[in-house]
Order: sequence, then structure tokens, then C-alpha cells
Amino acid sequence: MTAANRQWVLAARPSGPVTREHFEWREELAPSIADGEFLIRNLWLSCDPAQRAWMEVDTYIPKLPLGEVMLSGSAGEVVESKHPDFAPGELVSGVFGWQDYAVSDGAAGIFPVNKVPPGIDLPTALSLLGVTGITAHIGLLEIGQPQSSDTIVVSGAAGSVGSFVVQIAKLKGLRVVAIAGGPAKCDWLTSELGADAAIDYKDEDVEARIGELCPDGVGVFFDNVGGEILDAVLEHIAIGARIVLCGAISGYNDFERRPGIRNHYRLIIRRATMRGFLVFDHMDRVPEAIGDLATWAAEGKLRSQVDVVEGLENAPDALNRLFTGQNLGKQLVKIADASRG
Amino acid sequence: MTAANRQWVLAARPSGPVTREHFEWREELAPSIADGEFLIRNLWLSCDPAQRAWMEVDTYIPKLPLGEVMLSGSAGEVVESKHPDFAPGELVSGVFGWQDYAVSDGAAGIFPVNKVPPGIDLPTALSLLGVTGITAHIGLLEIGQPQSSDTIVVSGAAGSVGSFVVQIAKLKGLRVVAIAGGPAKCDWLTSELGADAAIDYKDEDVEARIGELCPDGVGVFFDNVGGEILDAVLEHIAIGARIVLCGAISGYNDFERRPGIRNHYRLIIRRATMRGFLVFDHMDRVPEAIGDLATWAAEGKLRSQVDVVEGLENAPDALNRLFTGQNLGKQLVKIADASRG
Repeated sequence: MTAANRQWVLAARPSGPVTREHFEWREELAPSIADGEFLIRNLWLSCDPAQRAWMEVDTYIPKLPLGEVMLSGSAGEVVESKHPDFAPGELVSGVFGWQDYAVSDGAAGIFPVNKVPPGIDLPTALSLLGVTGITAHIGLLEIGQPQSSDTIVVSGAAGSVGSFVVQIAKLKGLRVVAIAGGPAKCDWLTSELGADAAIDYKDEDVEARIGELCPDGVGVFFDNVGGEILDAVLEHIAIGARIVLCGAISGYNDFERRPGIRNHYRLIIRRATMRGFLVFDHMDRVPEAIGDLATWAAEGKLRSQVDVVEGLENAPDALNRLFTGQNLGKQLVKIADASRG
Repeated sequence: MTAANRQWVLAARPSGPVTREHFEWREELAPSIADGEFLIRNLWLSCDPAQRAWMEVDTYIPKLPLGEVMLSGSAGEVVESKHPDFAPGELVSGVFGWQDYAVSDGAAGIFPVNKVPPGIDLPTALSLLGVTGITAHIGLLEIGQPQSSDTIVVSGAAGSVGSFVVQIAKLKGLRVVAIAGGPAKCDWLTSELGADAAIDYKDEDVEARIGELCPDGVGVFFDNVGGEILDAVLEHIAIGARIVLCGAISGYNDFERRPGIRNHYRLIIRRATMRGFLVFDHMDRVPEAIGDLATWAAEGKLRSQVDVVEGLENAPDALNRLFTGQNLGKQLVKIADASRG
């Protein structure tokens, strides 16, 4: 393998919005593989808010060391293999980083390497049938435990996980109030995804609107945002409410100045629960989730919205779109087409 | 009944520490009773942090209207009755307020009226075998779900609920780190109640000390305080930790300026749960709790520490002791002795 391996390497730790200056563009030769390893040609990158956190602080993984290739969920094609279970031409997803080529031994760690089933395209493997869709399914149904009479509120509702949560909640017959930024996203959420109401947090008083739209209180809050929006919803939680903490994007882009919350005492008054989760702790539920997601999609009941930026060289800008709210649905970076079919 | 009924009536809504100026001292004749009612002579008052919240904001009950008798858990003696189930001379506990005499029809509402069993003195009925002890039992064991390998941290550990939680946790074989204010309380917690370690929040860096004392993380945090102490513990929660929200006293005395928390995102990283509760939702567990508490006390394994202020006229000062940290264990006000026994 003498192909060039282009890479974005972490060069400086950000404390605020990410710019290209936090990375170094490097080109080297694609790596060679040892026995038990295989070489992946990366074709698509997943952009996720957690990636920003990985750059700056220890989370459920240690922060990314300076000088290492930027971490990212991704999908690609096996192009060389000395591993018995992976053959050239197979499509796989995993955490292969912001680069053209990655070596894997197939070992899972916290981020499993999965084969992409035949007939599934890579954007779908990274979104609907990947960590994104599975997180929405398990987070809403397993962690949120919605009851049929619940009103559910979703923040970051026009994002990747949020847009699935809105749709799954509607499939389950729940009343859904979606929070997003800007009229276009709000219109999309109500007219295309079926949300019963949408709140434009950039233009409306979220706390007042939640109060109007949820007169019986919020039974489940699926939160991707944290900060002021979480505080606003806490004011209106129902007795026994479940708050599913999926993310806290309002704090990831400037960790030191992340917003706090002041209304946690409402959990006492309302005898409510706030629970954080990572989908990797719930692998036993993944087959059911994938089954549901694939079935609903095949029946035309579940839409997978992706937002594509072209080119590995634009990965930093693509990640930033999550924090400026430019993405609709799942933000992806397309690096190249697969060599097969 | 021509006795005088002395009362403390809410005269002004506080926004900061309570003073006597927030109340009006009133003396009127003891009320008469109708069919189905009985008259209680109040003998002991329970001082609880929630009372301060009731004065200012809506909680699980609407805030106390101005001009009404201050609400308070209390215990007394039935002195007249036109109710088939309550006879003069019986001792009862309930929410009878800061006054000498109260009328009840025995109906529960959120605050049940309970008969005090024979042989139980009223301080015990208000503390060990009352809402205080039951809250500690159910909060720790039912909401906290401690596992044998957990380290449990308790804030407000020298207070009424906290001091029972420390002891129950030790009875269950858990490692206990207690947080309290001042060396005297800390000494008492370790030498008298058996806590494995105590942290003086007035003199020590709570976050650093939790880190030192809980190298494997905090499995259960029983929180009576909120604010900075909750934030400090969130930094060190174990994966899957349970945070039991019993109270948030750091915010009750100045509601508008209550402290927030900034580390709620740790619930995601640690896949942890924060749950508020009120004991009134868990009445099915009360018999078991009372059985355990009474047994442990009879066996000398559970100490009920009470701190008594004499005189109804001193009730405002007694309530304030909770917020200045003067009380050790359960703060009570003794109004009078029972006429019987």
C-alpha cells in the first residue's frame, strides 16, 4: 500500500469554538498491517458533539493526546486484511478518525467495529442504524420509559439523535414538543417529522412556551443540550418525570464557561429522575433497536435526514456546524466513494 | 375550651434569612370543634428545612398564604374529640403548625395524621420513627439502592435525616464519608456515629477530599444540601452512581440567589442517576422502615440525636438554627409537657 494517508492531527487544545488552527494537516504513507490486522479506507465521517469534548477534557475516555489523529466515528471499506474475520471489500464502521486509512485488529473497546450489512449504505450505517439511531431508541424507550399519556419534550430536536427521538416518540403515540433553533427547523419538525409543536429557542421564551404547551407537565425530557434549556424544562416537569441526559452540547464548545443549571431542586419537588446514559452500556438492547429502526424505515415511518459536507479537508468546519446549529439531522463528512458497487 | 391559643402567623415573605419580623405573634382563644373533628394540644414542633421553602415558594404544596399559621410538623395530645377514631389523651403527630391548639378531622392529605404508639415519646415520634427516620431509611435503601461495595457520601450528615443515613449505611456494612460543618460535628460523626471519614465543608476543599477518600468513586450520594457540595461530589461519582436528592438546603434560605450546579454533565459521562423523592410517595415502605428503625434503636445500634429549643415563642429562632448549622441531629421545639404520664 503506497497510497497517501491524509490526516487531521490534534495540534492545540481548544477552549472555545474549534478552528482549523487546532489541527495540523499531515500527509504520510498509508500504514502497513501486521498479522491479525486489517486496513480500512475511510469513506465517511460521523460528526458528533462528543468529539468536541474529547478534544478538551476527560470524559468516558481520556482526552485525545496532542499529536494524535482526531477521533471520529466513521465508516469505510476494508482494503487489505491479515485478519480471519475481515476481508477486502467488506464495509465496516468504527472509530477510525479523521484520516484516509486506519488499521484495526477488530477488537471492540468501548467503540465496537461493526460490519455494515449488505444493502445498507454507509450514511445509514452511521446514522439510522448506527450509534445515532440506537442512542435515540434506547434513550427514549429504555431510559425514558415513556407512558402513553406522557408529553415528551426533545431538545436539539432537529439534530441527529433528536430527530429520531421525535419520530420514535410519535410512532409510539406520544405527544411531542420539539425544541430547535430557527423557524426552518421548527417548521421541518412539525410538518415533516410530525412533532405536535416546536419551540424556536433562538426567538421564543422556552420556559413560558413549555408551560403553555405542557399544561400537565413534561413526562419525559430527552435532553441533548443542558444549560438554560434544561433549566426551563425543569420548571415544568410532571411528578415522576424522567429526564434522559443524552448530551449537553451547550457546554461542550467552551468547557470552562459551560452553563450551569439552577433548578435541580425541582427534581425533589416533582420526585423526578435525571439519568445520564451511553449506548455502549446497553449492548443487549441493540438488536431490538436495530430491528425496530430498520423496520420503521422500510415501512416509510422513519426518516433519516443527513447533512453532508464533502472532503476530509473540511472536517473541522463540519464539526463546527453542530455548534453553530447549521446541520439538519445527522452531520456527515464524505471522504470518498467505495471502490465496490 | 377557653384556653389561649398562641400562634406564629406568616406576616411577610422572606427572601433571605428568616427573622421574627416575618411572623406575627397572635393570641386568640383555642378553636371549638365540629362533629368529626378533634382538638390537638401541640406539645412539640419539628424543625425542617422544607418549612423555609414553604414560606417563600410553591413546592409540592402551594406556598403558605400570608396571614396563616406557620406550617410545621408537630406532635401533641388530643384534648377534645367529636371524632370516632380519636379520643382525649391520645398522642398524635401531623402538621399542626406553630400554635398551641389545632383542629383536625384526621384526613391525611399529603401529611398524614398518625397516632403515636404506646411507649413512644413525642421526640422519637417526630424523629426516629417519624418522617425524619423514615425518609433516611427509604431514601438510602429504596432510592439509593446501595451495593455492598459502594462508598456512600452523605451531606448534611450531622442533621436529622443525615445522621440516620450515616448510621443505617454503617448498619448495612457500607463505607461512609460524611460531610458536615465544623470539627465538633465531624468528630461526632466519626467517633459516635461510626462514619469512616468526615469532611468539614467549612474548612476543607470538599472536592479534593472526596477525591482522596473515594478513589473508586462515590457509589451513592445522599444529598441534603445541593449547590457547591453537589457539584464537588459529581466530580467523583462512580459509573452507575445513584444520587439521592433529599434536600437542597443551600438554596432554601435565599431562593432567588440559590446556587446552581455546573457538573450535571458528569451524570452522562458516569451514566449516573439523580433522583428526587418525597417519603409520602412511598407509604407502602413505611411499615418496613419503622420496623427496622425501631428494632435497630432497641438493639442500641441506632442513635436518635435531638436538639431541643424550649418555648413556642422561640420557634423562629429554632428554625433558623438549621440554616446557621447550629443544630446537632433533629431540631425540635418543646412547647409543653403532655398532661398524661
